[in-house]
Amino acid sequence: CEGEFFPGVPNILYEGPSSNNPLAFKWYNAEEVILGKKMKEWLRFSVAFWHTFRGTGGDPFGAPTKAWPWEDGSNSLDMAKTRMRANFEFLKKLGVDRWCFHDRDIAPEGKTIQETNANLDEIVALAKKLQEETNIIPLWGTAQLFHHPRFMHGAATSSELGVYLYSAAQVKKAIEVTHYLGGENYVFWGGREGYQSLLNTDMERELDHMARFFEAAVAYKKKIGFNGTFLIEPKPQEPTKHQYDWDAATSANFLRKYGLINEFKLNIECNHATLSGHSCHHEVETARINGLLGNIDANSGDPQVGWDTDQFMMDVAEATMVMLSVIKNGGLAPGGFNFDAKLRRESTDVEDMFIGHIAGMDTLARGLRNARKLIEEGQLSEIVKKRYKSFDSELGGEIEAGNGDFELLEKKAVELGEPQVASGKQELAEMIFQSAL
Amino acid sequence: CEGEFFPGVPNILYEGPSSNNPLAFKWYNAEEVILGKKMKEWLRFSVAFWHTFRGTGGDPFGAPTKAWPWEDGSNSLDMAKTRMRANFEFLKKLGVDRWCFHDRDIAPEGKTIQETNANLDEIVALAKKLQEETNIIPLWGTAQLFHHPRFMHGAATSSELGVYLYSAAQVKKAIEVTHYLGGENYVFWGGREGYQSLLNTDMERELDHMARFFEAAVAYKKKIGFNGTFLIEPKPQEPTKHQYDWDAATSANFLRKYGLINEFKLNIECNHATLSGHSCHHEVETARINGLLGNIDANSGDPQVGWDTDQFMMDVAEATMVMLSVIKNGGLAPGGFNFDAKLRRESTDVEDMFIGHIAGMDTLARGLRNARKLIEEGQLSEIVKKRYKSFDSELGGEIEAGNGDFELLEKKAVELGEPQVASGKQELAEMIFQSAL
Amino acid sequence: CEGEFFPGVPNILYEGPSSNNPLAFKWYNAEEVILGKKMKEWLRFSVAFWHTFRGTGGDPFGAPTKAWPWEDGSNSLDMAKTRMRANFEFLKKLGVDRWCFHDRDIAPEGKTIQETNANLDEIVALAKKLQEETNIIPLWGTAQLFHHPRFMHGAATSSELGVYLYSAAQVKKAIEVTHYLGGENYVFWGGREGYQSLLNTDMERELDHMARFFEAAVAYKKKIGFNGTFLIEPKPQEPTKHQYDWDAATSANFLRKYGLINEFKLNIECNHATLSGHSCHHEVETARINGLLGNIDANSGDPQVGWDTDQFMMDVAEATMVMLSVIKNGGLAPGGFNFDAKLRRESTDVEDMFIGHIAGMDTLARGLRNARKLIEEGQLSEIVKKRYKSFDSELGGEIEAGNGDFELLEKKAVELGEPQVASGKQELAEMIFQSAL
Amino acid sequence: CEGEFFPGVPNILYEGPSSNNPLAFKWYNAEEVILGKKMKEWLRFSVAFWHTFRGTGGDPFGAPTKAWPWEDGSNSLDMAKTRMRANFEFLKKLGVDRWCFHDRDIAPEGKTIQETNANLDEIVALAKKLQEETNIIPLWGTAQLFHHPRFMHGAATSSELGVYLYSAAQVKKAIEVTHYLGGENYVFWGGREGYQSLLNTDMERELDHMARFFEAAVAYKKKIGFNGTFLIEPKPQEPTKHQYDWDAATSANFLRKYGLINEFKLNIECNHATLSGHSCHHEVETARINGLLGNIDANSGDPQVGWDTDQFMMDVAEATMVMLSVIKNGGLAPGGFNFDAKLRRESTDVEDMFIGHIAGMDTLARGLRNARKLIEEGQLSEIVKKRYKSFDSELGGEIEAGNGDFELLEKKAVELGEPQVASGKQELAEMIFQSAL
Repeated sequence: CEGEFFPGVPNILYEGPSSNNPLAFKWYNAEEVILGKKMKEWLRFSVAFWHTFRGTGGDPFGAPTKAWPWEDGSNSLDMAKTRMRANFEFLKKLGVDRWCFHDRDIAPEGKTIQETNANLDEIVALAKKLQEETNIIPLWGTAQLFHHPRFMHGAATSSELGVYLYSAAQVKKAIEVTHYLGGENYVFWGGREGYQSLLNTDMERELDHMARFFEAAVAYKKKIGFNGTFLIEPKPQEPTKHQYDWDAATSANFLRKYGLINEFKLNIECNHATLSGHSCHHEVETARINGLLGNIDANSGDPQVGWDTDQFMMDVAEATMVMLSVIKNGGLAPGGFNFDAKLRRESTDVEDMFIGHIAGMDTLARGLRNARKLIEEGQLSEIVKKRYKSFDSELGGEIEAGNGDFELLEKKAVELGEPQVASGKQELAEMIFQSAL
Repeated sequence: CEGEFFPGVPNILYEGPSSNNPLAFKWYNAEEVILGKKMKEWLRFSVAFWHTFRGTGGDPFGAPTKAWPWEDGSNSLDMAKTRMRANFEFLKKLGVDRWCFHDRDIAPEGKTIQETNANLDEIVALAKKLQEETNIIPLWGTAQLFHHPRFMHGAATSSELGVYLYSAAQVKKAIEVTHYLGGENYVFWGGREGYQSLLNTDMERELDHMARFFEAAVAYKKKIGFNGTFLIEPKPQEPTKHQYDWDAATSANFLRKYGLINEFKLNIECNHATLSGHSCHHEVETARINGLLGNIDANSGDPQVGWDTDQFMMDVAEATMVMLSVIKNGGLAPGGFNFDAKLRRESTDVEDMFIGHIAGMDTLARGLRNARKLIEEGQLSEIVKKRYKSFDSELGGEIEAGNGDFELLEKKAVELGEPQVASGKQELAEMIFQSAL
Repeated sequence: CEGEFFPGVPNILYEGPSSNNPLAFKWYNAEEVILGKKMKEWLRFSVAFWHTFRGTGGDPFGAPTKAWPWEDGSNSLDMAKTRMRANFEFLKKLGVDRWCFHDRDIAPEGKTIQETNANLDEIVALAKKLQEETNIIPLWGTAQLFHHPRFMHGAATSSELGVYLYSAAQVKKAIEVTHYLGGENYVFWGGREGYQSLLNTDMERELDHMARFFEAAVAYKKKIGFNGTFLIEPKPQEPTKHQYDWDAATSANFLRKYGLINEFKLNIECNHATLSGHSCHHEVETARINGLLGNIDANSGDPQVGWDTDQFMMDVAEATMVMLSVIKNGGLAPGGFNFDAKLRRESTDVEDMFIGHIAGMDTLARGLRNARKLIEEGQLSEIVKKRYKSFDSELGGEIEAGNGDFELLEKKAVELGEPQVASGKQELAEMIFQSAL
Repeated sequence: CEGEFFPGVPNILYEGPSSNNPLAFKWYNAEEVILGKKMKEWLRFSVAFWHTFRGTGGDPFGAPTKAWPWEDGSNSLDMAKTRMRANFEFLKKLGVDRWCFHDRDIAPEGKTIQETNANLDEIVALAKKLQEETNIIPLWGTAQLFHHPRFMHGAATSSELGVYLYSAAQVKKAIEVTHYLGGENYVFWGGREGYQSLLNTDMERELDHMARFFEAAVAYKKKIGFNGTFLIEPKPQEPTKHQYDWDAATSANFLRKYGLINEFKLNIECNHATLSGHSCHHEVETARINGLLGNIDANSGDPQVGWDTDQFMMDVAEATMVMLSVIKNGGLAPGGFNFDAKLRRESTDVEDMFIGHIAGMDTLARGLRNARKLIEEGQLSEIVKKRYKSFDSELGGEIEAGNGDFELLEKKAVELGEPQVASGKQELAEMIFQSAL
């Protein structure tokens, strides 16, 4: 219980499910081995700098509410350094080995690109030093291309050429910086890449621009030898009416159309999934079976709310489904679980920062434990396997191999007569699933 | 005012906007030339047999309400023939040259595939004769693969091999029949291709099966020389929780992943569009810029309702936006506008059948007239053109040609300094648009 | 493991959380005492006859799928009797003491009201006998006023006087029958009381008619000495675009406007709650604090789906919140938990009927156990109490007593200066809540 | 074309539908008489100071974008005066006679309540002078109780007594100021009166507090002789997860429960209506038939978007339905139509301020003209009247008078036999409605 920023908070330790200490883990036990890997290897947690250290509590109807003791509210270089030190103390006490950042949120923008880049370099140098002291690295970095008014029509999809240029310069630098810090991935968040109204928008031209931009980014990444994964983060809307990276399938279609499918993976955010009309599990699975599951932004929305609330994930059932997919995927590395989550505006105690993250980490850890239980018991996967067993026949194999032409199939159908169809056993599957929670 | 089925209804004629005769067109004037084509060529209307002649008014909470004078409610061959004659009298009086059908809705299912096919042949022979008498052809045909319990887990994506076989046999026949009748397109409607719960579903395997099925259909189409367009109809959900052809982008991703992108186009339905969280205009545009705009199912949902209501399109603003896209696409041929719309359950007069279709046709005709006005005035397209004019420069051209690498772009960004960003003029665009309605 | 209908199914017994027998309770232990009452007294479970014995698996796109061994699919009196016997065998094996029914679903409609009532009497006599043999009673009865085409514009709110008369006759009989069977409540489900379009509807007149109808029902109930509670079941939409009993607050406003507030309580259905944009917990609490919490229809919808799916409740977190409210309410008696839930269309095994109900019962039982844990630990209620403690002061008491006029309050505000506002501790509350699951 | 703030903008004049001048009215002709009243008397337009003069273009993801020439971005008294002068020049050029204001948005907050009130008095004195010069008055005033962090848990429903006191002091002053300026109404906007999570909330106690607060406001209004109407503005959510004034029916229930129903009316906002799952027309009608239609906030949301976008109303069909209700209500006076609407973030030209308002005013004016056409033609009201004509009989009259007891009704039902039910004619109603647009 010491430190410059969080003197009242101890290192967060695992105390097990019977603990009712809010500043302890009940389910996350970093070194414990589950299905052949340590929990920390399955989960690869990361804290999002922008929410945790730049989130103010402001909303469309209200002013900032957070008054952290170290914070003067300014955007100075000194303040940026203070925050960076707070970030690493926080990570260390929380026992998390990775962080994620937006360029403009860690360092103040200057009057010119050069000045801005110099500011960024100064902060990044500090981050590098703190990383080395703590053995913490970036899960990913990104460029923040949405806050400044210049981005009001988008960045790579802005109607203004100058903004496209500016964005390229900024992304170029952000990739360099992520590379320098040893980041394992680099994320393209859609920001304002989308439209407010089709009446004043040339969607086709904007999408072409976005593809050109991504191609240039890929070329540059290769040129400088950055081996991290490029990630696109689907989101259906907000701040625009329609974001071009609507959901996993939409993003995959874009990547395929422009020949970029092998250069990118997806960063699935649970709150974005539900805003697009899908369950989080659906989006994770869609990414997985398209070979695109790269990272998960672990948060959740409110099921009754139509905007991005970025709450800490607290739903154990959803977390269990997500972990079932992650295990099928063999894990997420070099991706991980980033807490793109923020405290409620009304949560204003310093300890709330820890409580939110602990609860989020415990939720996923519990999901991992439940997924193990389901996998080891095998009842659920048995239901699935059994449902498709007729395709494990010779004819099924021929069809799956692409040898089932319509004339053959018709002949077989006539021979077979009325097919028998078994119960889907959904309630049984739900019962088994729920029993593992 | 004569005929076997609609003796009280005259041929529907154009009377112009000042008419208040419910059985006349106020905006649709088939032979009138708009932007170089006759209205009937732009619009290529079609009536959906299943809604108009098999819709009963039943809903999940209630029994059928329709008691058409010619209908005995049975599924006999004789009744099927009577309905087919009613269909062609209806089309003729309405002045519509195309119809769409589901195989099982025009002819009764028999005890075996052979018997079912024989029934279908008998009805199709009658349809052929009636087509020849009236100069009416199918806009498209399709196979109805969702009503019978055998399809409860899907058709091409059923967990049961026997159902896959059955579906292949049925689709094979439906393509043959559509070909025989001179159909211009063939539609794959997702039916129950999707899932109710991921817990008991192997989504990847089901999607693979769907791809194999489509490949076989393409091969068979080529074999028999059917030149009509194959269409996929996106729908996000209902009857399943999640339909695999969720929206235009999802369908495009599927087609690209499995190498089928050049073999299919899309049939965009407005009600499905809004259920998937998009405007109808968005889905039409997404299909268009992916080169996939093949047909439009002209209907609409209720903006406050979360299921497929299949109402006749009555929103002139939406129709105008859709027609702007259709004109950009150079029309829809060989596709058209199919009224996949049904009377409300409570609309039980025979004349309501005409009123619904007339109102739907007038809505799109009015949309076409408004689109012409907008195009001829040019104010709206001028706003769009002006917004992107910075990309019409030499540097813009280089970027669009793929020659804008990050180092060049950064150099240009530094030279340019802070980019100037103009107003998006959305309210002006909306004002201009609305003034044309 | 015997019986006429379910020979393969044993009496369902409590085996505890470690059991993986699908035909056993893991959490529901009827006689176990929790917070001073037996579980069966807190939960007062009921099976819904219409779903469990009349649900066919049909949906708007598909035919029936259920082929129960005892079912011939007819609507004969004999079939009605067979179903009724199956119902009581099912209840007995499940260990549930209550059932709910719709008049038309237990007995076939005749050609006249008299014939229909005679049919009903015959079945009710059998039910009475079976009730006596099993010690089972109706939790509630109701009149089914939505399936027949005569109700297409509503029942009490139909635009046709004749339908209003018919509905009154039917409700009169349904109340008599419920009274005769010892039913503890009588439910008014909105059916088609609502509108499809405001353009052809006089909403004010329809609501006035509904009020007149309810007044007459209250008068008749008193006349015949029926002491059961009258319940209104809020639902926002479906089958109509807008149901008049939209949600708990809307129903309460109606009752207050027409002076009926003391004559009715509410039957909150979780799936209806979420369709109206509220959590189930919100609707239960709204009913409770309006003094209207009478019964709960225990089911759930799909969070991504916009229609009434009536699934068995499987969400332990939701169940725990609901049980916290029910405990605050001192229980639900004479109401209870009715399983207004149906098997998925694809669940076609007889054992699925048991599995669905067992899982639903266990979910609520687990909710009750979790609620006890939260109440006994006290951390959650402590957070709430502490938040409002400033109102437990003298001035707070004056304000709450209605003595806080604006001049006094302004004076106190000026004296106080800037108020201090504490953290809302939402994440802590969520962590505590989740730890109890 | 002169003035201090808008030198390039002329007085906005009516030029008729054929004009394509963006700075002219095409449909709104203030002095033209429609159905016995001038358009300006039916419409009673008002500009919202907060959006038009304090809206910055900031959103949850981005910084302000507006850089009006007169604006220095500060919150000084001088700047407040400048804005107030700009407001009155804007109103005059636009030809609008009313404005609406939030106290904190017209004058800067000081360090104490006294200082804040002194600031407000200084600005209000200027407003009074400008009002007299221009013959403009407030449609309504209100207190802004949501922006400052002190209101993070609500105002009258805050868990902190001190905030309740502060809010009372602020509302007291805002009522006084509205009274002084001759405001015709006073609005209570829910602000943050609601909850983020039921887990940490005592909803019943909060609602009791809100009722006490309203009672005190009513008492104070009477004491000072303010005769304006008190208005509650329903909104379902945002900024909270659940706002207590969810929709019209919820607000009415609250008012009835606490005996306040005769002291308040409702201010219906179209965007709030659609966010609560209703059409704007539904909410206006619900308010009307509860005797509570007091004012309309004329805006609209995006049908695909789940948050409050406050766009200028551009949907002529919606406007026509709203005007049909307003005409039925005999107008809105002393309420009116307030433009609670803001320019899109990307609309940054000064002329956009005029264009947005002109388009909004023209939309409602066009709605009024269309409503007149429908009323004068009479076809639509004839459909409605005819539907209910069976209740215009003697028996219908008895029932409507409350004399239809169940025994009488049953007797009549038996006599009548199967009721005949006519077509609802919805498509015809929609066709007639659409033809009037």
